[in-house]
Amino acid sequence: MIGIFDSGVGGLTVVREIKKLLPDVPVIYFGDTARLPYGNKSQETIQKFSREIVEFLRGKGCRTIVIACNSASALAADYLRKEYPNLEIYDVVSSGAEAIVEATKSKKVGVIGTTATIGSSIYKKKIADLNPEIQVFAKACPLFVPLVEENWIHRPETKKIARTYLRELKLKKVDTLLLGCTHYPLLEKIISGVMGRRTKVIASGAKLAEELKKQFANYDKGKDEYYVSDLTSHFEKLAELILSKEIKIKKCTI
Amino acid sequence: MIGIFDSGVGGLTVVREIKKLLPDVPVIYFGDTARLPYGNKSQETIQKFSREIVEFLRGKGCRTIVIACNSASALAADYLRKEYPNLEIYDVVSSGAEAIVEATKSKKVGVIGTTATIGSSIYKKKIADLNPEIQVFAKACPLFVPLVEENWIHRPETKKIARTYLRELKLKKVDTLLLGCTHYPLLEKIISGVMGRRTKVIASGAKLAEELKKQFANYDKGKDEYYVSDLTSHFEKLAELILSKEIKIKKCTI
Repeated sequence: MIGIFDSGVGGLTVVREIKKLLPDVPVIYFGDTARLPYGNKSQETIQKFSREIVEFLRGKGCRTIVIACNSASALAADYLRKEYPNLEIYDVVSSGAEAIVEATKSKKVGVIGTTATIGSSIYKKKIADLNPEIQVFAKACPLFVPLVEENWIHRPETKKIARTYLRELKLKKVDTLLLGCTHYPLLEKIISGVMGRRTKVIASGAKLAEELKKQFANYDKGKDEYYVSDLTSHFEKLAELILSKEIKIKKCTI
Repeated sequence: MIGIFDSGVGGLTVVREIKKLLPDVPVIYFGDTARLPYGNKSQETIQKFSREIVEFLRGKGCRTIVIACNSASALAADYLRKEYPNLEIYDVVSSGAEAIVEATKSKKVGVIGTTATIGSSIYKKKIADLNPEIQVFAKACPLFVPLVEENWIHRPETKKIARTYLRELKLKKVDTLLLGCTHYPLLEKIISGVMGRRTKVIASGAKLAEELKKQFANYDKGKDEYYVSDLTSHFEKLAELILSKEIKIKKCTI
C-alpha cells in the first residue's frame, strides 16, 4: 500500500502518473486541505504537519510514503527519513531533480515553485549533487496555486501573470523547465505557450512513478482511499478535474 | 483587554482603526498564519479553528473579542456567541453591514469578499435585517488575498484582475462597495480606481472601532501583544506595512 500526501488535492497529479504505470496498486491519499497552502509556511510548521500525516498513513498500514507536495519535499523529506528509518520515502523534489538532469541538453534549466520551495534552494542543491555543470535558474510563482484553485486555467489574466513570472527564465534561454509544484501541471498549456517551443516543460510525477514501478514489480491489488482534512465541493470538483473520474473523498481530522 | 483574531495579519487593518479611536487600549492579537487562509474552508473547520483561538484569548484574560476575519465572522460568530455567552463578541460582518446601511443613498450596494464569506450570503441577510429595501450585489474575489500576500498592490496584473472581478458590480451602478475581507483595504486604491468616483468604497474596521469606543469609555492602559501560529519574515513585513510601525510578533502554537 502506498501512502501519498500533499497540502491539498494538487498531489493527485502525482497519483495520476503512478496509476498510469501501476494501475492496480492500492494508494491511500491524504490532502491537508484544512491547512493548505504549505508554500508560504515555515520549515518547523511544515515538518510538524508532515509528521502528523505520516503517522496517519502509517496507521493505515502504509510502508511506502510518497511526498507529493514540493514544499513538504523541500522542507521535511530529510527530517521524515530520519524520523522514520523503516519507511520507504519518495519525494517529488528528488524525482524532479533527476528528471531535469536527464532532460537537459544545453545544461541551462529553470525551476518554478512556491515561495517555500524556491526559497529553500533545494532543487539547486539536488541538481548540483547529480551534475554540478548544470546552471539552475529558479523563480517563485506564488500566484499560480490560487489561480488554479480559482480554475482560471485558460484565462488571459493567468497568461499575463505567467508572462511576468517567466520573463527572466525565458531570457536565460533554459531548454528545460521543471514544474516544481503539483498544481502547476494544470497550467502546463499556458506555461508552455509562454516559454515557447524550445523549452521542454516537465513535471516530476512521471519520473517518480517510474522509480516506484521498479520497487513494485509484484503487488497485491487493492482499493484506493482518499482523505482530506477539510472537505468542500470545490475540492471534489478539482479532484475530478485532475483524475478525470469521480472519486469518493472522506473527511478526516488528524 | 481586547482580544482580536484573524486567519492572518490582515486583521491588523482592524487594529489600526481601533487604535485611531482608542489609542491606549491594550489589545491581544492572534493571527492563525499556520492555517490561513480561512476563505476557502468549510464552516465546521472555521468554527473549530475559531474556538481554539477564543480559548487562547480567554486564557490571556480577554473578555471582549473582536473577530477581525470576515470568513470567521460569517461562519463562526453566532456559534461563538452561543458557546461563550459571557464574552462580548464583535465581528466585522455585523459592523460592515451597519456601515453599508448608513452609507448608501441609492440603496444599491456591493459587497466583495472571499469564497466562504460570499458563499454564506451573510451580508445579504444582515443588510436585509437592517433595511430590506437595499439591493445587495455580492462577488467573491478569491485572488485578492494572494495578490496582497505577494505585495502586488500597485501592479497592472492586479488592476486587470480587479477589472474582471468588479465588472458586474460596476454595471449595477452600486453607490457603496464594502470591502468584506480584511486584506482588501490594502487594495483600496486599485478598487476605488476601477469602481470610479460615484462609488464610495468602505471597510468595516472604522465602524467596529466606533462601536467599541462606546463600550470602552474608561479603560486601563496596557501593552499590546501580537501572536501568530506561524512566523515568517513575510508576515513581519506585511504587519509593518499595515501598522506603519515595527511590532514584536511572537509565535505561539494553540
